[in-house]
Amino acid sequence: MTESKSLPEPGERGGAGFERRVPPGDDHERLVCRDCGFIAYENPKVVVGAVVSRGDRILLCRRAIEPRKGLWTLPAGYLELGESADEGARREAWEEARAEIEIDQLLAVYAIRRISQIQLIYRARLVSDAIAAGPESEEVGLFDWEEIPWQEIAFPSVHWALRDHHRLRDATAFPPRSNPAEAGGADLL
Amino acid sequence: MTESKSLPEPGERGGAGFERRVPPGDDHERLVCRDCGFIAYENPKVVVGAVVSRGDRILLCRRAIEPRKGLWTLPAGYLELGESADEGARREAWEEARAEIEIDQLLAVYAIRRISQIQLIYRARLVSDAIAAGPESEEVGLFDWEEIPWQEIAFPSVHWALRDHHRLRDATAFPPRSNPAEAGGADLL
Repeated sequence: MTESKSLPEPGERGGAGFERRVPPGDDHERLVCRDCGFIAYENPKVVVGAVVSRGDRILLCRRAIEPRKGLWTLPAGYLELGESADEGARREAWEEARAEIEIDQLLAVYAIRRISQIQLIYRARLVSDAIAAGPESEEVGLFDWEEIPWQEIAFPSVHWALRDHHRLRDATAFPPRSNPAEAGGADLL
Repeated sequence: MTESKSLPEPGERGGAGFERRVPPGDDHERLVCRDCGFIAYENPKVVVGAVVSRGDRILLCRRAIEPRKGLWTLPAGYLELGESADEGARREAWEEARAEIEIDQLLAVYAIRRISQIQLIYRARLVSDAIAAGPESEEVGLFDWEEIPWQEIAFPSVHWALRDHHRLRDATAFPPRSNPAEAGGADLL
């Protein structure tokens, strides 16, 4: 899950030429260029990824980049323009773990409100044992449930997805999960 | 589903001060301000909505705005910053049809590749018969399946959602549907 954020937070100044104000006819503050009036709309971002299993083992990637460099995560990242969510999840598995995966079904839709992110996490199977670290991973591995490095997980939503995957391991058709109740519609990431 | 697009298409010029070029250290064309170097990242947009039923009848809204003014659609629109997908679907039902709804489960995740849109459409129940046109609707109504104005539906994905909802009307737990096969990973919208 890489960061490519360049827009300032509400209340901050924009790029050199940008400011936040309510354009005529609108009812929300937008980022508006002081020079040319260009409006840079801001929208929630979509992260796509997968809990990928091979038998009882789960694929994890040790992050080679910030944030949370050195910690373990699922193969996941920003959905690209013109891509479907499952295509994005397959692409990320390839980019981060050189893993060829077969999507089973949507495991969860999580909302990370603080950073306006929607995460679509699939349940998937690894097609072959051939995996390798991509450029954003230091290392990749397949872990039995008991071997998962719980103290070195990069993001709360990785915990959620691993737990949801484990709870649903014998389910064949289920509605996707959402943020865990204990996270209170969570803002933990 | 309102349009709030201000960014030019690939190949077009940006706002007065913007152009498309590959910033240093990047590998994709971005919208860059010629004056201040500000990069306006473009990401897929998330539409959230619901097929809302009351008994056997389905809630539809006649659009009061372009595109497809005068045609019938589901209550749906762009996810806002800081919102979860189901919260967004509830908000849109209120804004467009003054409908108080109870989300059941995620019906479908559609990809509209041509406009880089991901649609999360829920199955929901109308809590009371009290509905009314919001500012973006000319009219709202509850329709039996046979009464749905099929020739006056605003978007292909509304057809998909209505059909998926109908097929799954007796299902209690199911994986969300995706683009119909006949749409070939569709680009019809």
